[in-house]
Amino acid sequence: MTTSRDETQNRIVTAHSAYEQARDLAPQVRARWLEEVASALEAHADELVTLGRQETHLEEGRLRSELRRSVFQLRLFMAEITQGEHLEATIDHADPSWGMGPRPDIRRLSVPLGVVGVFGASNFPFAFSVMGGDSASALAAGCAVVHKIHEGHLHLAVRTGAVVQEALERAGAPVGLFSTVVGREAAELLVDHPLVKAIGFTGSTAGGRALFDRASRRPAPIPFYGELGSINPVFVTERAWRARREEILAGYATSFTMGMGQFCTKPGLLFAPFTDGDEIAGILRRELSSKSAHSLLSPKLREGYDKALNTVRAILGVEVLVPGDESEAPRPTILLTTADEIRRRPEILEREMFGPATLVIAYRPGTDLASLARLLEGQLTATVHADPDEDVTELVTELRERAGRLVWNAWPTGVTVTYAQHHGGPYPATTATTTSVGTAAIGRFMRPVAYDSFPPAQLPEPLREDNPWGIRRRVDGLYESATAGENAK
Amino acid sequence: MTTSRDETQNRIVTAHSAYEQARDLAPQVRARWLEEVASALEAHADELVTLGRQETHLEEGRLRSELRRSVFQLRLFMAEITQGEHLEATIDHADPSWGMGPRPDIRRLSVPLGVVGVFGASNFPFAFSVMGGDSASALAAGCAVVHKIHEGHLHLAVRTGAVVQEALERAGAPVGLFSTVVGREAAELLVDHPLVKAIGFTGSTAGGRALFDRASRRPAPIPFYGELGSINPVFVTERAWRARREEILAGYATSFTMGMGQFCTKPGLLFAPFTDGDEIAGILRRELSSKSAHSLLSPKLREGYDKALNTVRAILGVEVLVPGDESEAPRPTILLTTADEIRRRPEILEREMFGPATLVIAYRPGTDLASLARLLEGQLTATVHADPDEDVTELVTELRERAGRLVWNAWPTGVTVTYAQHHGGPYPATTATTTSVGTAAIGRFMRPVAYDSFPPAQLPEPLREDNPWGIRRRVDGLYESATAGENAK
Repeated sequence: MTTSRDETQNRIVTAHSAYEQARDLAPQVRARWLEEVASALEAHADELVTLGRQETHLEEGRLRSELRRSVFQLRLFMAEITQGEHLEATIDHADPSWGMGPRPDIRRLSVPLGVVGVFGASNFPFAFSVMGGDSASALAAGCAVVHKIHEGHLHLAVRTGAVVQEALERAGAPVGLFSTVVGREAAELLVDHPLVKAIGFTGSTAGGRALFDRASRRPAPIPFYGELGSINPVFVTERAWRARREEILAGYATSFTMGMGQFCTKPGLLFAPFTDGDEIAGILRRELSSKSAHSLLSPKLREGYDKALNTVRAILGVEVLVPGDESEAPRPTILLTTADEIRRRPEILEREMFGPATLVIAYRPGTDLASLARLLEGQLTATVHADPDEDVTELVTELRERAGRLVWNAWPTGVTVTYAQHHGGPYPATTATTTSVGTAAIGRFMRPVAYDSFPPAQLPEPLREDNPWGIRRRVDGLYESATAGENAK
Repeated sequence: MTTSRDETQNRIVTAHSAYEQARDLAPQVRARWLEEVASALEAHADELVTLGRQETHLEEGRLRSELRRSVFQLRLFMAEITQGEHLEATIDHADPSWGMGPRPDIRRLSVPLGVVGVFGASNFPFAFSVMGGDSASALAAGCAVVHKIHEGHLHLAVRTGAVVQEALERAGAPVGLFSTVVGREAAELLVDHPLVKAIGFTGSTAGGRALFDRASRRPAPIPFYGELGSINPVFVTERAWRARREEILAGYATSFTMGMGQFCTKPGLLFAPFTDGDEIAGILRRELSSKSAHSLLSPKLREGYDKALNTVRAILGVEVLVPGDESEAPRPTILLTTADEIRRRPEILEREMFGPATLVIAYRPGTDLASLARLLEGQLTATVHADPDEDVTELVTELRERAGRLVWNAWPTGVTVTYAQHHGGPYPATTATTTSVGTAAIGRFMRPVAYDSFPPAQLPEPLREDNPWGIRRRVDGLYESATAGENAK
């Protein structure tokens, strides 16, 4: 099913043509197309979930919830673009008394980038795949999408792509606004092609970095929005540990085994104040006993997991706290080391084990947690378990420097799609400062354009004086209110 | 005066320490520091302008207006951060009935990146130099700045740097929040150093690309906000040409010779509908006769200008419309070619001549201007001279795809600092989708962080329920009004 070079080229050119036909339509029109996609995904839920079950070892409930998330996300993005939030419309009227000298009339809005290449992830066959966050935000932005299918769920992805394409066609979208390709050659051409203007990627650090380098080396480099690796440290203070140690260990056991540990937000490091490892191991073993094991997503992922686990386990100063096993559906493994070992070999903190394994770091009373946090690389999330009135400012500040989302007395797995969400973080968590989840993800696929001294009739609708789309705008530094609900059709 | 490797390293480390001391202070505190800088620049205006005159061949009026611009820019940015606009504070309260499943309390704000390396440009010794747009926006964002001095105005830059440092020290800012370095080795270390988190650059395409590549190759790549080359095409429609040909040619002559053609927004291409070159040459010669010539900014720039001009002049199909000269203060040169030649050799359109030279492209009646626009690379600006009720939608759309600012019946030189301004554009105009001029430039040096499930007392001020800073926020999808004027101290 590999897509040939010629055919990939053809899909990119067709996508560009579709982009050109669609780029100046009102967001309402695009929202109607996306609604057709959302409805089609709902209508085909049984069929798609069945395909997903066959290919991914994931349970039905999980797959249905991912599909619901994808559909919800499309509708949230539709509302966002219908209100014109993504346009960031800004108007400065001509002002002869402007402080640095007379200013002309300047108006700015954001426009779509063009064709976007999206790489699907293996671990979320709906939420970060064919019609996942990257595709949804690029389409909402006004772009066309060529999606590179992850072969870990090839048939599901091909079928999802077909459902999406049929829905867009039914809704009247130009042919080729969304398409899929398969295979490595297609992937590379997608990153190289001059008509592709941005890449959205979720996957491994090695694979993502190789493609980032490729995108950066182009004659005209393009933004590469890559979500790569994250180990998601959790810090438990002494007070929190005293108050609710068992509850924390139970939450930890549930969170790191969720989806067989194949979440990019899996808590891979737990800093906790204890000396008696046997007692902690006992609690964790008990908590893990109720979790059922499944096969990992693919043989390739399984191979990578075994290798990563063996590597970390072999590091001097690391021992096994709770042994797992190496069966087809592997039981989870918890490794143990100490803060002192970490200070000697901080590179231990950089080893992601993608699968049901995690590392507990025992620290002694009075340890400076902020100084441990300083040893960390960039992360998607960092979690603190502490008392609400405890002073952990220094720790939280150091974690803020290194992570995109800070979690308090909860667990990082589960990333809701909202206005305030941020799913990103310093490298290697991502290759950019942007988010791949939430409404703010749309802006990644747009760029601002200023209109200088344009006459009213020549301005695009969002920048016209009478605000025909009823969107929220900043005018001479102050914000107008949106009236999209009333004015827009 | 070259800064050694050790000393550069030392300044970066000190800058990082200053950043750490300052990052969590209220924007009002930082605004007071910046006000001290603005006042100091005003107080030292005579001294600095005199230094600038000695080093740059620029006239006093121009230098004073640049300094005024820099001071105004600092104060505009102060107002912006005092209102908290740069924080993009967003709050989503916990919602058990959220469409994809219960959501926790999620709050987001933007935080500064850390130490920023800023490369000064030669052509604007104040506005794009030591305390130009990049430094001002990075400082406003909450970052520390190490500024790489452009040696074209070394003494001015060193003195400006000292004035800025003294002012910051007087205001109580931590030592090293702003510093300067000189020399190539320092420049490279700035791009390589792990504590440097972003680069702002204005300069040549070759130099900027080399540094962009360097920033992208780092073990942890960083954003490189580079403003490189732009030729700034101008399209004159047949109707506009008939209506006001002489006025257009006069405006063109003034715009392309401004600052001896050493503006990044210099109109380097004029597409106009004529056949009688002699007549046009006569009008242009007359217009140019009143312009005084000056030396270019530096011998190196002069060398580059001569070379670029000779290269374009030697292209088959290019002839001289108005000859300049090769004296120390060179008279401007206007070259001529035709749309037919351009279609045969579109690479002619990619030759920037940084200095007082420009290329006129004569097109025949009925020519499809949009198809000519499609031959262009990325640009900072693109200009259309047309009748206000003429249908030039297709042309404007093609230009919008390729330029960051569209200008109507005016000239691209002169870039006002406002809320709506956009000074950027597709590669090679810039290496990013951001602006380096206007209040939106501040956001380049920040990144979002989400706070998930944080208790009230542990949230940073901008995200607290009672909004102690009185900033504008988005709450559950809707916008609150700013009350910074009333509440903030």
